Amino acid sequence: MERAGRSSTLGSTDEVELEPSGTSATIHLDMTGGGGSSSSDFNPFGGIDDVRFKTDDDLPDVMAPPFFSKYGDFHTIDWQRDLARDRLRHKMISKKKVDFPLGLLQSGWDAGAGWICVLFVGLAAGATAGIIDIGARWMSDLKTGVCADRFWLDREHCCWSSNDTFYKDDDCKAWTKWPWMLNYYNSSSFLFLFLEWIFYIGWAVAMSTLAVLFVKIFAPYACGSGIPEIKCILSGFVIRGYLGKWTFIIKSVGLILSSASGLSLGKEGPMVHLACCIGNIFSYLFPKYGLNEAKKREILSASAAAGVSVAFGAPIGGVLFSLEEASYYFPLKTMWRSFFCALVAGIILRFVNPFGSNQTSLFHVDYMMKWTFIELVPFALLGLFGGIIGSLFIFANIRWSRFRKNSKTLGGNPIYEVMIITFITAAISYFNPFTRKSALSMIQQLFDRCEDQVDEDSLCDQNKALSIAFGQLLWALIFKFIITIFTFGIKVPCGLFVPSIGMGAIAGRILGITVDQIFRAVQATPGHSEYFTCQIGKDCVMPGLYAMVGAAAVLGGVTRMTVSLVVIMFELTGSLEFIVPTMVATMFSKWIGDGISKMGIYEAHIELNGYPFLDSKGEYPYSTVASQVMRPSIHRQVADEMSMSDLRELKNELSVITESGMSLGDLESLLRQTDFNGFPVVVSQNSMHLVGFITRRDILLALHTARKTQPYVVTNSIAYFSDGVPDSVPGGPAPLRLRKILDMAPMTVTDQTPMETVIDMFRKLGLRQVLVTKNGKVLGIITKKDILQFMRNKNSQ
Amino acid sequence: MERAGRSSTLGSTDEVELEPSGTSATIHLDMTGGGGSSSSDFNPFGGIDDVRFKTDDDLPDVMAPPFFSKYGDFHTIDWQRDLARDRLRHKMISKKKVDFPLGLLQSGWDAGAGWICVLFVGLAAGATAGIIDIGARWMSDLKTGVCADRFWLDREHCCWSSNDTFYKDDDCKAWTKWPWMLNYYNSSSFLFLFLEWIFYIGWAVAMSTLAVLFVKIFAPYACGSGIPEIKCILSGFVIRGYLGKWTFIIKSVGLILSSASGLSLGKEGPMVHLACCIGNIFSYLFPKYGLNEAKKREILSASAAAGVSVAFGAPIGGVLFSLEEASYYFPLKTMWRSFFCALVAGIILRFVNPFGSNQTSLFHVDYMMKWTFIELVPFALLGLFGGIIGSLFIFANIRWSRFRKNSKTLGGNPIYEVMIITFITAAISYFNPFTRKSALSMIQQLFDRCEDQVDEDSLCDQNKALSIAFGQLLWALIFKFIITIFTFGIKVPCGLFVPSIGMGAIAGRILGITVDQIFRAVQATPGHSEYFTCQIGKDCVMPGLYAMVGAAAVLGGVTRMTVSLVVIMFELTGSLEFIVPTMVATMFSKWIGDGISKMGIYEAHIELNGYPFLDSKGEYPYSTVASQVMRPSIHRQVADEMSMSDLRELKNELSVITESGMSLGDLESLLRQTDFNGFPVVVSQNSMHLVGFITRRDILLALHTARKTQPYVVTNSIAYFSDGVPDSVPGGPAPLRLRKILDMAPMTVTDQTPMETVIDMFRKLGLRQVLVTKNGKVLGIITKKDILQFMRNKNSQ
Repeated sequence: MERAGRSSTLGSTDEVELEPSGTSATIHLDMTGGGGSSSSDFNPFGGIDDVRFKTDDDLPDVMAPPFFSKYGDFHTIDWQRDLARDRLRHKMISKKKVDFPLGLLQSGWDAGAGWICVLFVGLAAGATAGIIDIGARWMSDLKTGVCADRFWLDREHCCWSSNDTFYKDDDCKAWTKWPWMLNYYNSSSFLFLFLEWIFYIGWAVAMSTLAVLFVKIFAPYACGSGIPEIKCILSGFVIRGYLGKWTFIIKSVGLILSSASGLSLGKEGPMVHLACCIGNIFSYLFPKYGLNEAKKREILSASAAAGVSVAFGAPIGGVLFSLEEASYYFPLKTMWRSFFCALVAGIILRFVNPFGSNQTSLFHVDYMMKWTFIELVPFALLGLFGGIIGSLFIFANIRWSRFRKNSKTLGGNPIYEVMIITFITAAISYFNPFTRKSALSMIQQLFDRCEDQVDEDSLCDQNKALSIAFGQLLWALIFKFIITIFTFGIKVPCGLFVPSIGMGAIAGRILGITVDQIFRAVQATPGHSEYFTCQIGKDCVMPGLYAMVGAAAVLGGVTRMTVSLVVIMFELTGSLEFIVPTMVATMFSKWIGDGISKMGIYEAHIELNGYPFLDSKGEYPYSTVASQVMRPSIHRQVADEMSMSDLRELKNELSVITESGMSLGDLESLLRQTDFNGFPVVVSQNSMHLVGFITRRDILLALHTARKTQPYVVTNSIAYFSDGVPDSVPGGPAPLRLRKILDMAPMTVTDQTPMETVIDMFRKLGLRQVLVTKNGKVLGIITKKDILQFMRNKNSQ
Repeated sequence: MERAGRSSTLGSTDEVELEPSGTSATIHLDMTGGGGSSSSDFNPFGGIDDVRFKTDDDLPDVMAPPFFSKYGDFHTIDWQRDLARDRLRHKMISKKKVDFPLGLLQSGWDAGAGWICVLFVGLAAGATAGIIDIGARWMSDLKTGVCADRFWLDREHCCWSSNDTFYKDDDCKAWTKWPWMLNYYNSSSFLFLFLEWIFYIGWAVAMSTLAVLFVKIFAPYACGSGIPEIKCILSGFVIRGYLGKWTFIIKSVGLILSSASGLSLGKEGPMVHLACCIGNIFSYLFPKYGLNEAKKREILSASAAAGVSVAFGAPIGGVLFSLEEASYYFPLKTMWRSFFCALVAGIILRFVNPFGSNQTSLFHVDYMMKWTFIELVPFALLGLFGGIIGSLFIFANIRWSRFRKNSKTLGGNPIYEVMIITFITAAISYFNPFTRKSALSMIQQLFDRCEDQVDEDSLCDQNKALSIAFGQLLWALIFKFIITIFTFGIKVPCGLFVPSIGMGAIAGRILGITVDQIFRAVQATPGHSEYFTCQIGKDCVMPGLYAMVGAAAVLGGVTRMTVSLVVIMFELTGSLEFIVPTMVATMFSKWIGDGISKMGIYEAHIELNGYPFLDSKGEYPYSTVASQVMRPSIHRQVADEMSMSDLRELKNELSVITESGMSLGDLESLLRQTDFNGFPVVVSQNSMHLVGFITRRDILLALHTARKTQPYVVTNSIAYFSDGVPDSVPGGPAPLRLRKILDMAPMTVTDQTPMETVIDMFRKLGLRQVLVTKNGKVLGIITKKDILQFMRNKNSQ
């Protein structure tokens, strides 16, 4: 029933209602001609094919997709058509509600299905995030040692449970360092440190190699951040298996491994991908969503929100991220459900409590001070820095990714690439306390107030230690920037949020320390003490706030997020007070970044990969009209001056089907000679007046079916897309009625429609193609691909 | 320059670029026929009319709107057309950037105009909110007394500044009660209380009467909440003066008066209206927004967000409110600006600090406890209650509003109505401590923890006082419910948020106290003490949280807000912890409410007033196609079976213009005989093939201009909308070229397009009309009005 009216819902709703059992049945009826009997009557001795054909799911093999979908891999969905199918389904359930007492239950289930589905998604996403966090934490600690008696504990829990005395840096006796296993106990000896270094590198390389092997062998789609692809999928692109269970499993495992290996990558982007996988998997429990690609995207939007929610502990930020960055079709109903989904996921994650604290946020900060208006200047500077470094990063990363794509040495050996990158990362970052620890704890340390610092001597002390830390930070920033360029894009699950935040936090802290020192210096001069009230031993400004603002600035520069970014940062601090600095930095970062290059990292990767993504954000002030973009293309001036007789010449270029008069053989040769996905149906080749549109898929299916089941239908049979079909043609073969597979409501624009309007229609209505008419005659067709091509050309001009 | 291409941007972009100085110039050129000289050449001795006509702003009086707009009052704007105009304007500025060095500055100003505009709006909205809050507070206290030596202080500041001993209820000696002025000092005597009562009523009636008089005399649009109208305006409806400066001034003053009078109304809805007035007023400083109705709505969306931001101290909630409730066309750029605007407004309000505290939120709560999962049951019950009482309220209020509308006695005497309502409200509410104080302080008291209560004896004491308070709460709830039904809709500025929150808070607190008592009772029984850990003297549950959840539930039931409501509540508490109860209640409230009646209070009022509002939220599963809705209407079956020759009959019903062959006289008689706002232009009456569309306005303008300025153009002149115009007709009058005022890119659908798709197009593309075609021939037209009519019929079925 879900498939009711697969082929003709748009055209003739009422007719389809009479034939709810699917396309094939509809076509039977059409093709019996005057006889009116069913196919089995005509084929009493039919073989397996014919018997199979009586069931609803049997389509000829050549065009049989998995039964739940009618789109091929790497195709774009037709939103209007899918939504129409869903309305039809809904109508039928509503009817049943009245008819049968049992139908009421079905109707209730149908109404609640969306909520139940997102509830499950939220539960699963929260649990998954918790497991991954715990796993990554444990494996990350494995690089330094193992818990002696209870190997399944990470360092912190190991030390807690053993009730040992803590050493510096959270170490304790129960936490067995690897050199200890080899009986080296003198932690200050060179050999000990060397062994520790070797183990650190060895574990890191082993983990990342395992991750890349898993990805390569089991699920190639599990690599990368996944957000560019999610954006495309949500915009209507179909990538089979991208959200499948194998991708989910391998990406989960790979994510634990790759983030534990100490590579400069984050878990947040992949978490969004994982949440979408969960959404996709659960949607198949609910045919309403699983069998309808457009409806499924409602669930996926909610899943994306849940992904961000668990990644940052920011449900509202998640919803806004889904709205701003990821989603395409986002009605308010979806927003409300996304919020629910994000909230459930957040609560479950909190319940799992992977960090052993009661904080839901990834980074919890609790500044007690206030900032002063004069500090808006350094905040704006951070924004400037974020915009520049973000654009630089995008530029370099895209260049490197393009090189990887084109180079056989690099592109063909992803495993070696991962091993080399991991080796370099581990070998170098070991020597810097900031890069050595996990990115998350580094960021937390940089965000924290001086009062909360664990090792106070380094970042907050006002003497020599500070300048050492300053140098280490600077070095960490440069290293992180360079290594992340090469890391983002390797074939392991890797996100970009945490590295960006890390870079920004370092830069922000550096500036914060600098400003702090300046304020102290100014205060020391006489006559200024009333302005600056720095107390000895306390922060003069909040360097932690600078780190947070810097994080927002760089993340903004890299991703070009705006509202969702600020809201995520707001949810981290929970105070309106600190929105303003974040907002100022984000605004400057966005302006500067957009000034350098319009595209964020995700858009840049989408373009690099050539995905058919029609951005719903940009504005396109072109002075082009539809007739200049359509195919078959005609020169502008020509189109304007063309008379009707000239237009007739054009018909040879545009492949059309006439509503009557073409034989089966004509249609089949048209299908053979062209590879268009659809054909306009016109009144006649002469007039070219538009009747409707038919997809290649539907016509292939219909002809194939007719050939198989209708002995009377031969090559010479005339195919009728019109109403007035003669019952039988004297002396000729039986006619073939195909009106029901005709889409009688194709979208049309006139040749003079400005391209901005056409693009708007594609974006807002989710079209696949639009027909261009002039005075009621079909001139050509504009597909989504044409639009993308056009925009690419325009942008490169 | 802002008006460039007023009439033909959609049709022929390039041509318009050559004629940037406006429609009249374009038409001149068209109408000079072979001559090619300008109008002044032909009329060297022209009178005032002709001289005036040379300037760009002079249109014939009959159709001259204020120069900044081309829409009439109560008309709907054409989004596509306005946005096209803006793109054209933008393109011209971009061109200038290259041409002149000064153009760069203009281009920069243009780019920054939006941000500067919303900055001003934010500043002004914050300041306005602060002034209104301070004013309302002072006037509200005026009902009980006046500050003896400094009359401009409210009671709290009066007592603070006088350093007096505080009495109970914040009173002090410096605060002179009215009976004291008449020398009655014995506050327990009957006469004293009676006098106090009389003064209380007298001031209330005086204030509200003043408010209604202001509204009636100066600005009739200043009454009500304004949100239904704002929704319509943002959806593209034009209501002249609704957002003007008089409305702003009178609504500000009226709002102070009406909210001080103690009526059961809130300041929040009117604050949104005021913010939109500010946005409208400031937009005229920036021609980009002031002269383009579609672009102006971007500023108004941001203003609405600022309005909610200052009303609740919730900037994110404000943006989401604008997105969810108010706005129609909300691109992400607008969202980012709205956020900025809302934030600026919030910060300014905080700076003004009207409540003398450092809290930005309207109600600040700080619960220390956690809720238990078992409490989700009462929270869901509150949601149930909210949904029911909300729907009941909507039903009753709409019935009463309709009665007011139709009754001459009531509708004709708004002043008496206000006086009577105020009298009843003041007279009754005086006797209940909860209704006597301002709604805001009542809500704060109900939200607060027991530890924070000022008069602890009443709400938190575990003995007799509690049961008295319980009864008072119950009585307050009933009274508030009834009086608010009659209050919402009287002709003073009045919002609905605070009364709804008030009702909900009362109901929630009642339930909270009940649950608290139950828990205590259960705990008293042996064997249960491990479940419930209520300590003596402390809350067992948090009745304040129940009040907050109840507030969300009732507000949700009345307005049907979802995400924005939860986010506003989140911003009040600042903790993720309490989102879940709010969310549960809001969900139940929304489900129950929607089950009873689909419409929220604002939609109901929009329907009551008959505004042309096309809801962007609902789904419409109709099985209707375009040909059944279009005008001229034809019966469904007929349309399906109609042959082409039948269609020709139809042409007599559909008023069309042919692209050539109609004379000036024909056109003028067509305009006289019909009152359609536009006409399809076809190739010929016989073929009915669509060429374009022309609005009544444009054709009237063109003909009028031609008649005035072109002596060669006479009644018999043939009007040409086509390209091939003969230079002169031998023996005939000069032809009139009108191609440039023709919209060559009208939106079309085929007759078989399902109405869901048509509605989708109207909503998402902001159309005013769509042409219905069949096989390239025009069958009819569907306007926004037809769509609304259709939906209304369907819903009432």
